[in-house]
Parts: sequence; structure tokens; C-alpha cells
Amino acid sequence: MSNKPSIPQGTRDFSADVIRKRNHILATIKTVFELYGFQPLETPAFENLETLMGKYGEEGDKLIFKILNNGLNDPKNIDKAKNGFEKVLEGKNSVDVTERALKYDLTIPFARYVAMNHTKLTFPFRRYQVQPVWRADKPQRGRYREFTQCDADVVGSHSLMNDAEFALIYDEVFNRLGLKGYELRINSRKILSALAQACNASGKLTDITVAIDKLDKIGIEKVKAELVARGLTEGQVSIVEKYISIDGSNTEKIGELTALIGHIEESGAGLTEIKKVLAHTEGKNVIVDFTLARGLNYYTGIIYEAKAPANVQMGSIGGGGRYDDLTGLFGVNGIPGVGISFGVDRIYDVLEELQLFPADLQVSTKALFFNMGEKESAVAFDVMQRLRKAGVACEMYHKEESKIAKQFNYAEKKNIPFAVIIGSKEMEQQRCQVKDLATGQQKELAFEDLAAFFNSNEGLPK
Amino acid sequence: MSNKPSIPQGTRDFSADVIRKRNHILATIKTVFELYGFQPLETPAFENLETLMGKYGEEGDKLIFKILNNGLNDPKNIDKAKNGFEKVLEGKNSVDVTERALKYDLTIPFARYVAMNHTKLTFPFRRYQVQPVWRADKPQRGRYREFTQCDADVVGSHSLMNDAEFALIYDEVFNRLGLKGYELRINSRKILSALAQACNASGKLTDITVAIDKLDKIGIEKVKAELVARGLTEGQVSIVEKYISIDGSNTEKIGELTALIGHIEESGAGLTEIKKVLAHTEGKNVIVDFTLARGLNYYTGIIYEAKAPANVQMGSIGGGGRYDDLTGLFGVNGIPGVGISFGVDRIYDVLEELQLFPADLQVSTKALFFNMGEKESAVAFDVMQRLRKAGVACEMYHKEESKIAKQFNYAEKKNIPFAVIIGSKEMEQQRCQVKDLATGQQKELAFEDLAAFFNSNEGLPK
Repeated sequence: MSNKPSIPQGTRDFSADVIRKRNHILATIKTVFELYGFQPLETPAFENLETLMGKYGEEGDKLIFKILNNGLNDPKNIDKAKNGFEKVLEGKNSVDVTERALKYDLTIPFARYVAMNHTKLTFPFRRYQVQPVWRADKPQRGRYREFTQCDADVVGSHSLMNDAEFALIYDEVFNRLGLKGYELRINSRKILSALAQACNASGKLTDITVAIDKLDKIGIEKVKAELVARGLTEGQVSIVEKYISIDGSNTEKIGELTALIGHIEESGAGLTEIKKVLAHTEGKNVIVDFTLARGLNYYTGIIYEAKAPANVQMGSIGGGGRYDDLTGLFGVNGIPGVGISFGVDRIYDVLEELQLFPADLQVSTKALFFNMGEKESAVAFDVMQRLRKAGVACEMYHKEESKIAKQFNYAEKKNIPFAVIIGSKEMEQQRCQVKDLATGQQKELAFEDLAAFFNSNEGLPK
Repeated sequence: MSNKPSIPQGTRDFSADVIRKRNHILATIKTVFELYGFQPLETPAFENLETLMGKYGEEGDKLIFKILNNGLNDPKNIDKAKNGFEKVLEGKNSVDVTERALKYDLTIPFARYVAMNHTKLTFPFRRYQVQPVWRADKPQRGRYREFTQCDADVVGSHSLMNDAEFALIYDEVFNRLGLKGYELRINSRKILSALAQACNASGKLTDITVAIDKLDKIGIEKVKAELVARGLTEGQVSIVEKYISIDGSNTEKIGELTALIGHIEESGAGLTEIKKVLAHTEGKNVIVDFTLARGLNYYTGIIYEAKAPANVQMGSIGGGGRYDDLTGLFGVNGIPGVGISFGVDRIYDVLEELQLFPADLQVSTKALFFNMGEKESAVAFDVMQRLRKAGVACEMYHKEESKIAKQFNYAEKKNIPFAVIIGSKEMEQQRCQVKDLATGQQKELAFEDLAAFFNSNEGLPK
């Protein structure tokens, strides 16, 4: 056994300062979800392997962390395990080796939950879920093997009011986080479908979508080349080019789109979805973007993508959309829905870069009581307990320490803003010295005035 | 692939009502930890296998969930994987098959964290940690494969003030949860060690401890029989019998113990620890129990065990103790500490049985806005947005529904206490009907008075 401890690649320990910042983001999102009537759900870290397999495409399946069955060396398991492992070495799965796997996202476990409980749930069912997921991706900057997803979905309703509310939720969350320059881009999959129909290339919807999705990265010429490579004719490419060249205000874009493919019936349905969202988000940063495609094939209506302010190199910090069928894969049909996700780790990096975390986030323990000797510390302990009863977080230096500088040093390193000092003189007078470690200001206060002082948040005069 | 979805054995989905109750417990514990100067820490769900193996005894090791390496079918891994799997089938471990494992408790990952970061941390280091852990135990009532641990530790200090503070933390948490009849039993491992010395049987400390630990379950006669079976002489058993027969108030017990083994030097050190805790917990439910042993061998000083009120069949709802060496296993010596743990799942069951969860825990969404038609619902939506801005959680019925009973039914099923109804008449007058679904009382309010009404928490007159 190695003596040098290490942490698994692609995972992180979160110390107190990081947790407080993460909680600031998570608490903001949860509060807004609840304001909109969403209720929390939590599912286990692992699912039965068969619940997850085949849901994320071939590449996704490879990134699922599978859990080895326990007791494989038990004589009653050993033969099956051997055969099972042969399959594993062929790249297949075997429940004789792994029955369970860590969850890869929150959507499939949510679908499993709804499928299992659909007879008991009240629809429309509005749930939010904030939990870690795990992926065996190659770790790199900003990509972790354990990271937190933050989802909300409404299922069991076709109402476009839900679609509009999610745009409002994005706006409310980003405003509360101080992320003023965010952009929420929206489109409808129905518009993309109408484009394919207008090209007389409905069979090539995925090809068109995949190519358009790369516009930001590779530019219009390369998108055109890719469309040709994917078998589109010059005429078809020309329609797509006109489509992705649509520009202007939201109203202008809708006008141009209507002129280009308004004759296709499905474009009307798509525009109805988009207009519903726009009607509810006047004056907010909602931008119609007909080139927005989103990778996942299961979206069928509105799609969203939230982008960080343009002065930060980050790109997408959230996304989602409407889908027709959440639970069909689990044998329960007819449950449509719409949902969104927040990219917590990316939002964290954006707030850090823009210095948007509130300054007072890091103060938890308000005061360090100095330990000035046996009798003094016994009195100080009682005073400290009264403060704690009054809701003021505090602690006492753990031992008598004649070098007072050591006690100051401890408070500073721990980011504790105030020192409370009770020496023999103070002890007799039932008073204490309170020192603000940031300003160096000091004040003498009676024991009974301490709680009011700390709860007033006034601090000492500079 | 099976179509019938299921959840892995021994795991649970937590729906909103359960999450709110669990959060009530967790938030209470976290608040008290922070009042005492503890700061949060989070570690990943999985650790490198070698961090965990060999730390929990042979039985514990078997219950660790190991994660199968990804890409075993990659030609460059396949031979090693085959050999590694042979080892697995022999009950051994192989990093060629599993490099990682789910964490089994919070203590070893904490030790790994401290060992990795000890040069950067400020000692005494006070951390708390509330996270799930996983064990491949046979599931049964009250025992799960995924459950939450809730720990706090102070490391890097020998000060007995810390030991006393943990007793106060237990008291504060249980009082805040309304668990008045709890008992905190304390002892010191040094007292048990002194007993073994008094028996002239220091080499049999573990035998004596293990036997005494069973007193509650098997009674004094069987404990004596076990001591004989473990090789103690009649004279030695007689001393142990006197020891476990010590009874009375805390003061009486300490007197009896002093009379019995006070001549052994280590008993004095143990009593100093116990008296320090008692001095800080006068009037609280702290009971000296010299028969308290606690299973884990690494405890060296004070040990705690918290018990549910006697009117609930539950037993231990928390425990902990002082240890000499947190990180020695990871090559970093000289870091002593003391810590406690709360049994969240058991506390949940106790609060449920004693009906101690606050009644208002379950109300999140305050109002359902009825959907009375296109124009009406557009107006209602604006009113709803104003309420949300004012911090009132609400939602609107998702579609126009002529059968008003359906909308009432939805609100009731979702435990939403108020209905807000804006029909065509109300719309014109900028007023709405507010109905309390519990009492059936109804009141007409102007739009601008709604937020104040819901935030006042007054409710409607009965």
C-alpha cells in the first residue's frame, strides 16, 4: 500500500471557501425553482446498469462508470463471473460482473423515477434536481469526472406557458447572480424541421442540424462544404445559407424566416412557440437564433441555450428544451415535457472571473475568543455560549497561549473578523475587548452587550 | 433490455416531502456545527482504491463498492485486465480492473484530505462533512446501501475543550430538533484501559472491551461467561463484574470507580477527560457510562454515544470519540483529534415516530393561480410574476380547464394551501378571489394587496 495519498484524477475536494461560493449559486437556483412551483427530487448515485445503457449513444455508454459486483469470488458466482468478464473484455456488458453504474446525467434517472411512479404522481409534475453525476471523460480544464447538474423539468403538459416560464427562470437566476450581460438564445426544433422540408430534404434533418450547429465554430463557408459533403444539392445548400444568414432584431428575424420558409406548415407551429416565450420576456435578454440546434435528438419543440456575457470566454452556461416522450424507453408513453439545466461549474468560473461573488460570503465564524488562562477562559467560554445561543458563530483558541500574536494569527488565517479578549481585568469587570482585525479598531463592551453588537452587523467605527 | 424500470436494492428515491424533512435535520446540524466554528468540506464520491482498502477490517473491505475501470477492452489493457480479474476471483484487488471505489465513510477521505493538505491547513482544523456513503451491506429495515453521514472533527489539538464542545453540540442539535429525552453517554477509553491494568490483563483490553460492549444486549451473566471463554481468570472476571455494576448518579459512579481502580494512574487521566465534559454540561442529559466501549479501535480518549429517547426503539443515533492519530496511515504523524457523527437516517425515523417534524415544513408553493381562459390567464400571469418577485412561490394551472374542480383537485394533491382565482369580472376590477383550501374561507383582494397578504402569513379568518 502506498503511503502517499492522492485524489482520483478528474475529481476535486471542495474546501469551505469553494463550498460557500458553490452554495451561493445552488441556493440561488433552488430558490428561483421553488418560486416557480418546482419541488426537489433526489435519486441514488447509482442505477441498475440496464437503466442507463443505450441511452447516451455509443460514446456516452463508454463513459459510464460501472460498479463491480461484490462477492465475485464466492463459489456460487465465480463461473458466471468468468463468462461475464469475457463479455466485458469484448466491450459488452454483463450483469454477472456489473449490475450497477454511477449516474451519467439526471434526466434518465428522472425518467426512471417518473416511469416507476407515474400512477402516483400529480401531473403536470414540476421537479428540480441538484446532484452530482459522473463521467469517465478525459479530465481537462473545466471538465471533471464528478460534477454537479442542476435541472428542472415540467412533465405531463403540452402548455407553452411552461416553455415561457423557463426563459423567465433563466433571467431571474442570472439577475440574482449579477450576471447582467447573459444571453438566452432560443429556437424551435420545428423551425429546423421546416427548413429541412423547405429543402425537400426531411430525411437529412440531422445532417442539416449537425452542420448548422457548428456555425459558431467553423464559419459559414465550412458549414456549406459540410452540407455538400453530407449530400445536399447546391439548391438545398443555398436555402440553408439564406436561413443561417437571417439577422436583425427578433422581429426582423421572424419576418425574414416567414418570408423564407413560412409556406411550410411546421414553421408556423415553431414560431408560435417562440412568440409565446417572447411575449413573456419583453425587455429581457432573449434572442431568437434560428441557427441554434442543440445536440440531443430528443428535443422536439423549443430549445434554449444560455450564454455567459460576451466579455468572458465561456460559451454555454445552460440549456434545455421541449421533448415529446420522457419515459417511452421505460414502457410508459404519452409523457411530454420541457426542461432546462444550469452548468454550475461554468457559472462558478464566470462569477469568479467577473468577481461577482458577494464579499460577505466567506465569513462564517464571527469571533475568536482568546484563551488568556484557565480562569479567564472559563469565563470566556460562558460568554461564548451566550453568543452562540444568540446565533453568533464563534470559537475559542484551543489552549492558553502566552504569545498573543499566535492567537491573532490564527484568527487572520481563518478569516475570522473579530477577536474577543477577556483578561483578568476584564473578567472582574464583566467586560471584554473587541478588536476588528481588518481595521485594528478596538472597543470595550460589557458581556451582555456582545450579542447585540455582533447581530447588529455595524462593526467598529473606522 | 427490460422495459420495466427499477431502482437498485438498498437505495431510495427521495421525493419532496422526504427531502424537506431530511433537510430540516441536516440544516439544524449544519447550523449548530457552524455556530461552533466548524467549516464545511466535501470530498469526491469515489477515492483511489488503495486509499480505502485495509482501513475497515476484513469485513468492511468486502462491503466497499469498487468501480470497474473503463476501456478494459482496449487492446493495450486487455492482458493486464485478464490477469487482474484472476486476482479479483481470488478475492484480491487489482488496479488493472478497479482503480477506484465509492467511499465507505467520511473519516478516511477526511484523513486523506488532511494528509494531502496538512502543510496548508491552519490547525486546529475544524471541519464538518455531510455526504452520502455507500456500503454493499445486505439491505434491511433501516440499513441502506446509500446513506448520509454527518461528521464533525477537530484535528491538531489535544485540548479537552473540544471534547466538551462536542457534548454541547449534541445537546444543542437534539434540543433544536425537539428530541428532549435523548441521552448522551460518555466514557473514556483510558478508563477501560485502566480496568484492564487493574485486572493485570492489559494484553486482553480488546477482549474485555468487546465483552463489555455486549452488556446491553446479552446481560451480565453472559458477559461473564464470555470473559471466561476469552481466558480471564475468576479474579479478573470479578473485578470486571464490580466495574460493570457501578451505578448511580454521575458523581456516585465516579466515586465508585475511583474506589475500584483509582489506584491505576490512567484512570485519573480518563476521569479528567470525563470531568471536563461534565463541567461544561451541567443540567444536560450527559450520563457517565463506564460500560460504554464503542467498537472502533482507534479511539484513545473520550467516547460518546447518543441514544434516542427511551420511548423509541432505536438505540444509538450518534457517536464518536477522541483519537491519537488521524493520518498516520497516510504517512503524516502527530495529528490527534476528536469527532462525532450523527445518524441521520435513524434521527429521521425517531422524529417521524415522535411526530416532531414541524407542520409547516411541507408548504413550498403558497398559491395556485387558476387558469380561467386566455385573457384571464394572461392577466393572472402578470399578477403571479409580481408575487414571485415578492418572494412568494406560486404556479398557474397549466391550461384552461372549464371543470374548476379539476384545478382545486390539483392544488389539494400538491398541498398548495391557497387558490387565486381571476375570472372576467375580477380581471376588470383588478381584484382576485383568494381561497384557503384547508378552511374553505374566501376573500376578495386587490391585486396590489396580494403580496402583503401572502407574506403576512396571517391566513384567512376562520
